Amino acid sequence: MATERQAGLSLIYRLELTNNSSTFGKVAHHIGEENGDIIGVDVVHVEKDTAIRDINVMVYDRDHGKRIRERLDGEEGIRVLNVSDRTMLMHLGGKIEMRSKIAVRNRDELARVYTPHVATVCTAIAEDPTKAFKLTIKKNTVAVVSDGTAVLGLGDIGPYGAMPVMEGKAMLFKQFAGVDAFPICLDTKDTEAIIAHVKAIAPAFGGINLEDISAPRCFEIEKRLKEELDIPVFHDDQHGTAVVLLAGLMNAVKLTGKQLSELKVVVVGIGAAGTACTKMLQLAGVKNIIGVDREGALNRDTEYSNANWQWYAQNTNPENLKGNLSDVIVGADVFIGVSGPGVLTVDHLKSMAQDPIVFAMANPQPEIDPEVAAPHVRVMATGRSDYPNQINNLLCFPGIFKGALDCRASDINEEMKLAAAHAIASCVSEDELSEEYIIPSVFNKNVVQNVRLAVIEAAYASGVARRRYRDYKNKN
Amino acid sequence: MATERQAGLSLIYRLELTNNSSTFGKVAHHIGEENGDIIGVDVVHVEKDTAIRDINVMVYDRDHGKRIRERLDGEEGIRVLNVSDRTMLMHLGGKIEMRSKIAVRNRDELARVYTPHVATVCTAIAEDPTKAFKLTIKKNTVAVVSDGTAVLGLGDIGPYGAMPVMEGKAMLFKQFAGVDAFPICLDTKDTEAIIAHVKAIAPAFGGINLEDISAPRCFEIEKRLKEELDIPVFHDDQHGTAVVLLAGLMNAVKLTGKQLSELKVVVVGIGAAGTACTKMLQLAGVKNIIGVDREGALNRDTEYSNANWQWYAQNTNPENLKGNLSDVIVGADVFIGVSGPGVLTVDHLKSMAQDPIVFAMANPQPEIDPEVAAPHVRVMATGRSDYPNQINNLLCFPGIFKGALDCRASDINEEMKLAAAHAIASCVSEDELSEEYIIPSVFNKNVVQNVRLAVIEAAYASGVARRRYRDYKNKN
Repeated sequence: MATERQAGLSLIYRLELTNNSSTFGKVAHHIGEENGDIIGVDVVHVEKDTAIRDINVMVYDRDHGKRIRERLDGEEGIRVLNVSDRTMLMHLGGKIEMRSKIAVRNRDELARVYTPHVATVCTAIAEDPTKAFKLTIKKNTVAVVSDGTAVLGLGDIGPYGAMPVMEGKAMLFKQFAGVDAFPICLDTKDTEAIIAHVKAIAPAFGGINLEDISAPRCFEIEKRLKEELDIPVFHDDQHGTAVVLLAGLMNAVKLTGKQLSELKVVVVGIGAAGTACTKMLQLAGVKNIIGVDREGALNRDTEYSNANWQWYAQNTNPENLKGNLSDVIVGADVFIGVSGPGVLTVDHLKSMAQDPIVFAMANPQPEIDPEVAAPHVRVMATGRSDYPNQINNLLCFPGIFKGALDCRASDINEEMKLAAAHAIASCVSEDELSEEYIIPSVFNKNVVQNVRLAVIEAAYASGVARRRYRDYKNKN
Repeated sequence: MATERQAGLSLIYRLELTNNSSTFGKVAHHIGEENGDIIGVDVVHVEKDTAIRDINVMVYDRDHGKRIRERLDGEEGIRVLNVSDRTMLMHLGGKIEMRSKIAVRNRDELARVYTPHVATVCTAIAEDPTKAFKLTIKKNTVAVVSDGTAVLGLGDIGPYGAMPVMEGKAMLFKQFAGVDAFPICLDTKDTEAIIAHVKAIAPAFGGINLEDISAPRCFEIEKRLKEELDIPVFHDDQHGTAVVLLAGLMNAVKLTGKQLSELKVVVVGIGAAGTACTKMLQLAGVKNIIGVDREGALNRDTEYSNANWQWYAQNTNPENLKGNLSDVIVGADVFIGVSGPGVLTVDHLKSMAQDPIVFAMANPQPEIDPEVAAPHVRVMATGRSDYPNQINNLLCFPGIFKGALDCRASDINEEMKLAAAHAIASCVSEDELSEEYIIPSVFNKNVVQNVRLAVIEAAYASGVARRRYRDYKNKN
C-alpha cells in the first residue's frame, strides 16, 4: 500500500458542533493534547442548533490523524463528518475536463461546428471512414480502459475506485505528450463483455491503453482486441514496464561489459508484468531466462494449471533448471523482481555472478531493501522514486502512443516497443552513464520526443503506419 | 439536407501538378473561365516531378465548386487530391480536447495525482462509491451516446460519420453550461448491445445524453437505461424538442388568449420526436391531440403494426377522428409538424380555427414555407435559424443536464422537463412577447441559468436529487 513519506501531513477535519460556547474549546483542547497543530478554522454552514466547521490540522502521519479523529468523535457535541487531506482536495470534481478547441460565439460559428454545415463533414467521413483520423478527435485520442480489478497495489476495487488512477493517467498523457485521453472504467469483469464494450466504443479513439486489469484475463483481452481492432491496443502494466526495464538493462550491461545474449537472468513473479518483461528481453536477444514463482523455477518436467506458466516453462529455462530461487540464482547476472518484499536476500546476491544487476520492482516495498543490497550489487533499480534508477512506465506510454497516433499506426508491435526501449536508453549519454544513472528521469524532456520519433520510424519500417510518409514528414 | 446559405463559399483545392511551366497557367485559366476567383495559392510539397499546391478559390455555391473540380480533373497534368472548405478545416483534428485541471510539475504533484498517494482517493471511493460524485469527473460529465443511425437529416451514416455531431454537442455542453461531455459513438445497432455498452461505461459519467438513435430502438434503449442506471438518461431528439416546443406553445397561447386545456392540436409525424412532443403537451394539460402519419389520423378502429402508433391511438384523439390531415385539421388551434416539406398547405391553414399557431419543425425545409404561411397564421415557429421563433434543443439540453448534475439527480423526470419548459418560456417577458418572439434566442445568457435552477428545484421537489439540499445551497 501507498505511504505518504513527508515531514507532516495537513488534514482538514469537517466537524458538526453543537452551538455552545464551550464546544470549540473542547475541540482545541483535544487536538492540543494529541500534539496536533491547528493551522486554520473555517465556518462552512451555521444552523440554529449546530455549526459545521473545517479545522485544518498539521499531524505527523495518518495514524496520528486517526487518533485525533477518534478522540474528537468520542466527545459530546462533536461529530466528525469527514477528514480530508491535500491529495483528496486536489481530486474534488475530478482532475480532467473537456474543452472546446473553437469558440462558438455567433450563428455562423454555431452553424459550422454543429447543424447544418457539420453535415458536410459527417458525409465526407461516412463516405470514407478513414477520414475520421483527420476530421475527428480519433486523430489524437486514447481510451484508458480498466475494469478496476488490479489497481495499484489495492487489487480489485471496482470501476469507481479505479477512476482517480485513470484520470491521473489521462492527465499524464496530455501533460507529457499532448495526447488526449479519456477514462473508460467498465462495470464488468467478464472477458468477453470487456472485449465487446471496447470494440463498440472504438470509433472515437485512435488507440486503446488497457490498465490495471488482472491476469489472466488481461492476456486474452489484449490478444483479442489486437486482432479485432485496427487501432493500437497496449496493456501498459505489461508492456510499459517491459519496455522501461529493457531500457534500463541495456544501459546496465554497458557498465558491466556483458552482452545481452550471454546473460543469465532470473525473473521472480511470473504474472502479467513478469511474462511481458521476459518476452521483451527475449526479443532483445537475451537467451537464458529462468522464471520463478510459488512453485519454484518453471520447468518442462512439471505440469502447470496456469496456462501462462505452461507457456513460460516451454519457452524459457534452456537448461531446464529446477528448484527454488536459491538454487537457480547461483551464477545469475541479472535478478528481475515483480513480486513482493523480502523475496531477495543478501545470500542470494552473494551467490550471483560478478557485477550483479538487480531490478527489484515490487511496489511500494522492493524485493530487497536497496540499502541492504547496496554493498553486494553493481547496479540496482527499483520502482521507487526515492532511490536512483526508477523503472517508471511514464517513460514509455506517452511517447509510444503519441508516435503511434502521429503515423496512424494500426498496432503497437514488437519493433515499436524495441525502438522505444532503445530511445529511452539513449537519453542517458555514455558520458552520463553510471551505476546510479542508467535510466532517465520522468521529467527529462527529451524522452517523449525521442520515443515518439523512434516509434514512428519503426512503425513505417514494419508496415503498420497508415499515414502517408510524405504527409507525416510535411508536418514534422 | 443541409444547405450553406451565404453569398460566397471559400474552397481549397489541393492539386497535384506536374512540374511544367504551363501547368499552373492551365489551372488559373480553367478557374477563370468558370468565374471562380483565386484568392490564394500555397505550396504544400514539392518533389522532382510533381508539386502539391493548395488553391483557395471563392465560388458561388457547392455546385459551382463541383463544376470547377470536374473541369480541373479532366486536364492533363492536374489531379485534384481534395476539396475542402472552412467548415472542413475547422474540423481538422477534431473540435474538442481533454485538459488537466492541475499541472504536474514535480515529484510531489505527480505523487498526489497519480501513484502512490492517489491510492487514498481510490480507497475512499471503493469504500463508498457515492464519493465518485465528489472525487471524480462523474460530478460534471455527460456521455453523448449515438449509434449514428439517425444523424441530422442524413439518416444511418454510422458511428464514424456521427462523430462530428457528437463532438459539436460536447462543445455546446461546455460552452453553454460548463458541462464536460464526451462523444461515445457505438459500432453496433443492436438494442441489447447498446444498452449493455452504456451500462458498462456508466461509472465515469453523471448523465447519459442519447442522440440521433433511430426509432423504434431509441424508445426501448432509453426506457431500459432509465430503469437500469442510477444516473439521468435523456434522449435529446425526443425530449429536448418536446421541452422547447412546449415553451413556445405556452408563450404562443398567451397571445391568442386560449387555454392549453381547450386547444385542438394536430401533430404530423408520429416518430420519436412527435410522440415525445405529444406526451409533453399532455403533461402540460393539453387534452385534444390528434396524430397524423402515413396512414392518416391515428385512431382506435385501426390496428397498427407499429407499437408506438398503437400506443398513440389508444392515448390521444378523444373524438376518435379518422381521415387525412385535411379532414382533421379543420378547426384546429395548433399544427405541430415533425415530418417533411410540403405537408401543410394554405388551404389547411384556412380551415383552422381563429389565430392559428403553426410549429413547422421539419429540417431544413419546414412543412410550409414561412413566407407563404405568413398571411394565414397568427404565430409561426420553425426549426430554422433564419426565421423568427426557432425551436432549438440547444435551449434545453445544457441547462437541464447542468441542473441534474448539480443536484446529483438520479433521473430527468417529467417534473424536471416541465420545469425546464416553464423556465425557457419565462425568458421572454410579458412586455417582450410578440408573434415574432415567443422563444428566446439560443444566445440569450439567462436561459441556461434559469433552466438549471428550475430543474434543480423540481428535482428536489420530486425526490430524485441525491445531493444534500444544504450542500447544494451552500455552493449556490
